[in-house]
Formats: sequence, structure tokens, C-alpha cells
Amino acid sequence: MKFSKYKKENNVSYALGATLTFELLKTHPEWITRIFIRTSAHLENGLADLQRICMKKNISIQVEDKPFNVLAAKGNCFVIAEFEKHTQKLNQNDNHIVLVNPSDAGNIGTIIRTAVGFNITNIAIIERTEKGDEKTALDFFDPKSVRASMGALFHINIEHFPLIEDYVNTFPKHKKYCFMLQDGSQSIHSISISEPYSLIFGNEATGLSDNYANIGHSVIIPQTNNIDSFNLSMAAGIAMYEFTKKDFNGNSERR
Amino acid sequence: MKFSKYKKENNVSYALGATLTFELLKTHPEWITRIFIRTSAHLENGLADLQRICMKKNISIQVEDKPFNVLAAKGNCFVIAEFEKHTQKLNQNDNHIVLVNPSDAGNIGTIIRTAVGFNITNIAIIERTEKGDEKTALDFFDPKSVRASMGALFHINIEHFPLIEDYVNTFPKHKKYCFMLQDGSQSIHSISISEPYSLIFGNEATGLSDNYANIGHSVIIPQTNNIDSFNLSMAAGIAMYEFTKKDFNGNSERR
Repeated sequence: MKFSKYKKENNVSYALGATLTFELLKTHPEWITRIFIRTSAHLENGLADLQRICMKKNISIQVEDKPFNVLAAKGNCFVIAEFEKHTQKLNQNDNHIVLVNPSDAGNIGTIIRTAVGFNITNIAIIERTEKGDEKTALDFFDPKSVRASMGALFHINIEHFPLIEDYVNTFPKHKKYCFMLQDGSQSIHSISISEPYSLIFGNEATGLSDNYANIGHSVIIPQTNNIDSFNLSMAAGIAMYEFTKKDFNGNSERR
Repeated sequence: MKFSKYKKENNVSYALGATLTFELLKTHPEWITRIFIRTSAHLENGLADLQRICMKKNISIQVEDKPFNVLAAKGNCFVIAEFEKHTQKLNQNDNHIVLVNPSDAGNIGTIIRTAVGFNITNIAIIERTEKGDEKTALDFFDPKSVRASMGALFHINIEHFPLIEDYVNTFPKHKKYCFMLQDGSQSIHSISISEPYSLIFGNEATGLSDNYANIGHSVIIPQTNNIDSFNLSMAAGIAMYEFTKKDFNGNSERR
């Protein structure tokens, strides 16, 4: 199999560096198609471990520099895992994050990392705000997004839905909390939480339209008037913190 | 006065675009040294308003394209405000955010915007983690940072301190809450809040060292083991949300 530049249409992507590669070996070794090692890599402890694990799992290792040059991996990147891209069905009983037409890959990386930190591991992407809109162009599997999520991407289920109605029809029993940029009917401070829930957030520029008030509870994070709104990933992080607080209660240790 | 490229050593910086320029006119008109308008700008309502305000405040307007070309302002940017850089003393009675040796301008822009949203308008920057370390290179007044904060920068006091000891000696009565990456002694969920407080956060890569436990209460935001830590701006945003919650309580409207 020849190595070529990453494209959105490819069915494989790349985890750059040892940390991401080991995370992928831990979470989804079955996704890995092959592993590249740079010719200048030294057989330090990490690499010996890697070779042992790959032998055991029957994953082929190729020593060549081309993938590093093509993927513009930095000089201190000695390992790249090539893997098949997988999106997975969301769990019917778990809580979800729902992102409507998100456009910024950096925001999404941060949201994924935070979600995994708060143990919310199901994320729905709604591809269009309205029927007829252009489909969201975001590619989570771009090697840059994989790196931005710092491997958290391998811990979650992501499922795409064309429109919010498709999501709502698939998960009728989830209680929907729609985070509005302003004039939400209820402050997040006084909300009552029912599980399973969907925390729904709009696009970076436009937020959710007023129509969303019809599909669930509209919620606002109270703020001063001196900023327009919180950044999308910040709003999502704060919401996840508040909604998962009870799961971590009385427990200052990591889970 | 000749126009030249932005440099950290300059005593002026630039607010790119009409939104930032109007924000600066509203918050600190006395900082503005002159305003540039692109030759291709049309005299729409916004510009007429701008000219009236500038006349009234005796701010000179120059119609020329060079500043737009030099500062790489996009085609839809028709106005630039040149302003004197000011850092201001922190207020003795207000709550503070304290960032120890922050290194990422994007993170800081997000933190400033979130802080203004939660009405925390005093931010201390500690330039070195330890005596003898290199000084933090971050320049809040870089036009890119000004833009990243979306004008929130004009709503806050920022003061620099060489070391954390200098900050602690200047604000002895502030209760210090030190946010640790792990093994903080107390969960943020069960913390008791005394005002005025300082919320202290470490560098993106290293967090706060164990020594910080001696200068105040060490706090942790509980999380799963599946991520290393929350991103700096996320941790700061969640902490600000929790600490200011009571100020917004029972109030779903904006303040």
C-alpha cells in the first residue's frame, strides 16, 4: 500500500507521535492498519515496547521517512500510527453532547478533551442548521484535529445526523437542554437535571435559533453585558462541569 | 508620525476593525493616538458616527492604506485605531485571576473574554515560575491578542509581577486558591469561598508546582483519568464560573 497525503475522503488517518500512538493501541488497536517509524529513531525503551505490542497484535511496522515528511510531523515525532476512520453509534442510555454545525476544529478538539474529562463520551454532530444549508465541513479525523484532542478522540463515540430532527427522532427519551446565547428561559444555576440528557450547542457565530426552544429546555449561562457571548468550547465546558458535578461529588480523587 | 510595523517594544498597538475601534472609543478613548481609514472605505453610517465621535474627542483620522497592508488586516477591515499600551494596577478589593508564566496567546485571549463575562476584571501575570527562569514572552498588546480577546482586553486591569512572592506581598489579604493539575487537597465542589480571592493557575505545560500548596488552598477540578488535564483556559473558565455563581444567582438576565 503506497503512502499518500491525508485527504478528507481517505478512509485512513494518522496519529502523530508516540503518545497518540500508544493511546490508540490502548483504546482501539483494531483500527490500526500499520505503524511508521522514522529511520533516525533510536531503539529507546518506548520503541521496544511498541515493537513488542505490535508483534503481539500482529500490526506491521514500516521504517521509512516519507510519512513524516508528507504529514509535516516535527523533528521530535518518531512514530506515526495509520488507522481506519470509524464513527460509532451513540449509546441510547448515556448522556450526549450535540453540536449543531460546528465550524472550528480547535473548538471541537477542546470540547472532546473536556467531555472525556467529565466522562461524557457520546457526541452528536448535526451537519446542517436548516434543511438546504451547506453541510458542515469539519473533519474530526484530520491528523491536526486528532492531535488537538490529545487522543481524547479515541475515547468517544461520534455520530453524524443531517438535521436536528433526525437526532431528536433517534433519541426521543433524552431530555434536551438547548444552550442559547441570550434570553434563555432558565439560568443554568437553577436547572433541574434529568438523565439521560442532551446538551445542545449552536454554531460559533450564530448560536441556536429561537426554534430550539420548541425541542427542549432553553438554558442560559448568565454573564455580564461586556462580552457578546462565551466562546463555544467554554460554554460547552461550563455546561458539562455543571451537569456532571453530582457524578464527581464528595470525591477529590480522579476516577 | 510615521507608521511602522508592530513590535513588542513599541508603546503603541492597534485595534483592527470597526468593532474593536468602537469598543476602545467606549472604554478608553484617552488611549487612542489616531485612527486610520482605508481609502476604499465607503461613508456608511458607521464611518459617519466614527468621524463625529473623533471630532468631539479631538482624535485625528488619517485616510491611508499602508497600516492595513502592514498589519495584514483583511479586506473587510476598514478602520484601525492606534492606541497607547497601558497596564494598570490591580484593585485591592476586587477578585483576581493570577496566571503564572502563561505561554499561549490564544488561551489568554479566551481567559480574558471569559473573565469579563464573569465580571472578574483584574488579572495578574507572574512573569517567572522560579527566580532565574526566563521571563514570559507573552505580549497581550500584540494586535492578534487584542483581536483574540474580542475587545475584552479593554475592560480589564492587567498588572505584571516578576515572581509569585511579589504578588502575594502586594495583596496579602486576598485568599489564594491554587488550581493544581492533580492531587489538590480539596475538590472545587466543596470549597468555601472568601472574598477577595485570587484564582491562581500555572503554565499550560507544567501547571503549578507543589510549593504553591504553601501560599494558599490547593484546589482540583475532579476529572476522569482518560485525559491528562483540562486545557488552561477551560480550567480557568470553570473556576470563574463556580466562584462567581453566587453573584449571578436567581438572575437569568444579563447584568
